[in-house]
Amino acid sequence: MSHVLILGGDGYLGWPTAMYFSNRGYDVTVVDNYFRRNACTELDVGMLYPVPTLIERAKIWHEHTGKEIKVVIGDLTDPEIVRSFFRGTIEYTWSVDNTDTGAPDTVIHYAEQPSAPYSLINYKYANITISNNLLVTNNLMFALRDFARDTHVIHIGTMGEYGTPDIDIEEGWLEIEHKGRKDKFLFPRQASSLYHTTKIMDTDLMWFAVRMWDLKITDLMQGPVYGLETENSVIDDRLRTIFNYDEIFGIIINRFIVQAIVNYPLTVYGRGGQTRGYLNINDTLQCVHMSEKTPAEKGELRIFNQVMETFSVNDLAEKTQSVGRKLGYDVKIDHMENPRKEAEEHYYNPTYQGLIDIGVTPHYLTNSVMEEMFQVVEQYKNNIRREVIFRGVKW
Amino acid sequence: MSHVLILGGDGYLGWPTAMYFSNRGYDVTVVDNYFRRNACTELDVGMLYPVPTLIERAKIWHEHTGKEIKVVIGDLTDPEIVRSFFRGTIEYTWSVDNTDTGAPDTVIHYAEQPSAPYSLINYKYANITISNNLLVTNNLMFALRDFARDTHVIHIGTMGEYGTPDIDIEEGWLEIEHKGRKDKFLFPRQASSLYHTTKIMDTDLMWFAVRMWDLKITDLMQGPVYGLETENSVIDDRLRTIFNYDEIFGIIINRFIVQAIVNYPLTVYGRGGQTRGYLNINDTLQCVHMSEKTPAEKGELRIFNQVMETFSVNDLAEKTQSVGRKLGYDVKIDHMENPRKEAEEHYYNPTYQGLIDIGVTPHYLTNSVMEEMFQVVEQYKNNIRREVIFRGVKW
Repeated sequence: MSHVLILGGDGYLGWPTAMYFSNRGYDVTVVDNYFRRNACTELDVGMLYPVPTLIERAKIWHEHTGKEIKVVIGDLTDPEIVRSFFRGTIEYTWSVDNTDTGAPDTVIHYAEQPSAPYSLINYKYANITISNNLLVTNNLMFALRDFARDTHVIHIGTMGEYGTPDIDIEEGWLEIEHKGRKDKFLFPRQASSLYHTTKIMDTDLMWFAVRMWDLKITDLMQGPVYGLETENSVIDDRLRTIFNYDEIFGIIINRFIVQAIVNYPLTVYGRGGQTRGYLNINDTLQCVHMSEKTPAEKGELRIFNQVMETFSVNDLAEKTQSVGRKLGYDVKIDHMENPRKEAEEHYYNPTYQGLIDIGVTPHYLTNSVMEEMFQVVEQYKNNIRREVIFRGVKW
Repeated sequence: MSHVLILGGDGYLGWPTAMYFSNRGYDVTVVDNYFRRNACTELDVGMLYPVPTLIERAKIWHEHTGKEIKVVIGDLTDPEIVRSFFRGTIEYTWSVDNTDTGAPDTVIHYAEQPSAPYSLINYKYANITISNNLLVTNNLMFALRDFARDTHVIHIGTMGEYGTPDIDIEEGWLEIEHKGRKDKFLFPRQASSLYHTTKIMDTDLMWFAVRMWDLKITDLMQGPVYGLETENSVIDDRLRTIFNYDEIFGIIINRFIVQAIVNYPLTVYGRGGQTRGYLNINDTLQCVHMSEKTPAEKGELRIFNQVMETFSVNDLAEKTQSVGRKLGYDVKIDHMENPRKEAEEHYYNPTYQGLIDIGVTPHYLTNSVMEEMFQVVEQYKNNIRREVIFRGVKW
C-alpha cells in the first residue's frame, strides 16, 4: 500500500490527515516536534481542551481501529531527521511494528509555523518563523534531490501569498504579455504578514527545486480553515484535533464561535471588509487526498487555490451573530482599531476550480454547520479563558 | 557628516566601498564575521594574494589618510549585534575614537553568502546560505522597524533573481493587465541557483517591510562584477580587495584572466550562450554612492538594474583569449559539459537606465581595462593554484 509521510502530524490539520489516510488503508508515518503545543505554553494561550500527545493519540487510534500510525518526535529543521525517512535510518518514537516502512510515496508537508501574529510578536519570533519554515522545506527539497526524486510532495501554501491584488487571482500561474513577447510566471505574490511572506519564499524555493531536479510538487494555496470534527474524530473525543481560540493560533471562524459563547464581542479589525476564501477542515482532507490520488507530473509545480467560498470579516461576524442569537447567545460585534496594516476594503476575485476538477466535493459554511460547531465548543465552555482571546500584536 | 554602516565590510565589494565613502568624508563603520575568508579556508580555495584582516586594513587606511573606519567583528545573524548599531550599544572591535558615531543614516547591506556553487555544494551549505542571508536581512528590517524607520538601506540584489525570461526585463517592477484590470507588481522572478533564490526571498522580505513600516530601501540588482583596483587601493597594495579565482567564489571575468595566465583552458559551460549583464567594480562604487546621495522615499522599494553592458560567456572567453594572446599567452577555450542546469541559449534584454539617470558614468570592459587586470594578476602568478580553479559542483 502507498506510504504517506506527514510532516507536522500533531497540528490542527496534521492529525486529522493522519487518521484520514490511515482509515483508507495507507501506511502512515507522522513526525512532529510539538512546536505548536510548546508555543501555546510559552505564550500562555490555552487550547479549548487538552489533547493527548501524538503518541497517545496514535495508541488510541490503534486501539479503536487496529491501524498503525507510526510516530517520530523530531525537529525537521535538522536535515538528518528529514533524510532518515528516505535512507532507511528512521528511529520511530512509537510504532506497533518497528520495521521501516521505506521511503514515502507521498510527503504531506504541514511542518510550518502557521500564525501571522506569532511571526510579528517581535524580531525573535520573526526569526523563528523564517528559520523553521525555510529550513524544513529546504531539507525536504534536498532529501528528495539526493534520494527520492519521484516522491510526490503535497505542500500547504496559503492564499495569503497573493495578498489582495486589483486583478483576478489565478491558480498559481499567469501568462504575461509584455512589449509584444509572452512568458508564463508564478502569479505575483505580495503578502501582508511575515508568516505569509515565508510561504512566498517556500514557493520560490520549491519552484527552484522543481526546475532543477524534476521533482513532483503540489502546492495548495489554502484559505483559513474552520471546523474541528471529522469522520474519524467522532469515534473518540480524544482524537479531536488541536483547537485554538486565541489571537495567535485561533482561526477566525473558530475564534468567533468561542467569543460568541462567552459573550466576548466579536473582534472585527477596522471596517471589516477584508475578504478571504475559506474552507471546512473536512474539505482540506478531501483536497489533500485527491491531490495524492492524482499526483503532479515530474518537473511540475502544480498549484491549486484551496478555498470553497469567500466571505468578508463582516459577513463572518454577522453569520456568527445570527447563528449565536438563534442558540440564545447575546452576540455583539466590536469594530476595533485595526492592529494590522491591511486593506479593509479591496477587490478580491480568486479562481478556485482545480480541486473540484480532480474530485473534491465542497462543503459550505451553512447555518447548520455553524450550529454544530457551536454545540461542540459549548461542551468546553468552562475551559475558555477570556484573557487569551485578544493580545493586540501590532504589525 | 553622514554616517554609513557597511554590513559585510570585509568582502569583495565591502572593503572598497568603505574606503570610497571614507575618502569622501563620510563617517564609516564596517562589520563582518569573516564568513568569506573562513569559507575559503574550509573549502581550500585560496585567494590570489593574502589580504590583511579588516582591522589591519582599517589601520593601514588610517595611517595613509588620517581617516577612521570603525570596525566591528561580529555575526549579523545575531539580532542583538544588528540592533546595537541603532541603540548606542555598539562595541567597536577597533576604532581610533571609541565614541559611538550614532545610528547610521545609510546602511549598505552586502552581508550575504554570495556564491551560487557554494549554495549547492550540498544540503548543509544550502542551509547556511538560507539562514545567513535571510536572518541578516530580517534582523536589519526589524532593527529599522523598532529604532530607525528613516534610515536608508542600500541592498545588493542580483540580476539573477529575474532569471532569463522570454520577455524584456524591467527595473524591478511591472504593470500587469489581466482580464481588463491592472495592478503593479514586482517583476516576475525565477532564479537558477539556491543562492539567487535567497535573493528573491530578500526582495519578498524587504517589500513586505517597506509596505508595513514605511521604510526606505534601494535594491540594486547587480550583475557579475569584475576588476580589483580602485582609486583607493592604488595607494597601497595591502588595501586591495579580496580576489578569488576559484569556481566557488571567483567571478567569471576575474577567473578567466587567471586561467589565461596559467594556461588553464577557459571553462565555458556547455554552448556558452548564457548572457548576463556585467559591471566594473568601480561602477559598483559609483552606483552605491549615487544611490546614497538620492535615497529612496519613505515607503519605497526602489529597484535599479545594476549592469553596464551584456555579454555571453562565449563573448567573455573570446575577449579574454584575444587580450591574452596580445600579451603573449596561449589561451585555449574548453567547452565542457555544463555542471549547472541553465539555458545555454536564450532571450535576454534587460533595461538598465535608472542608475545612469541618477548620475552614474559607466565604464566598459575595453581591451585596455582587461589588459590592466592582466597586469595586476600577473604579479601574483606564482600564487595561483591550478587545482582550485574547477571543482565541478553539480546543480
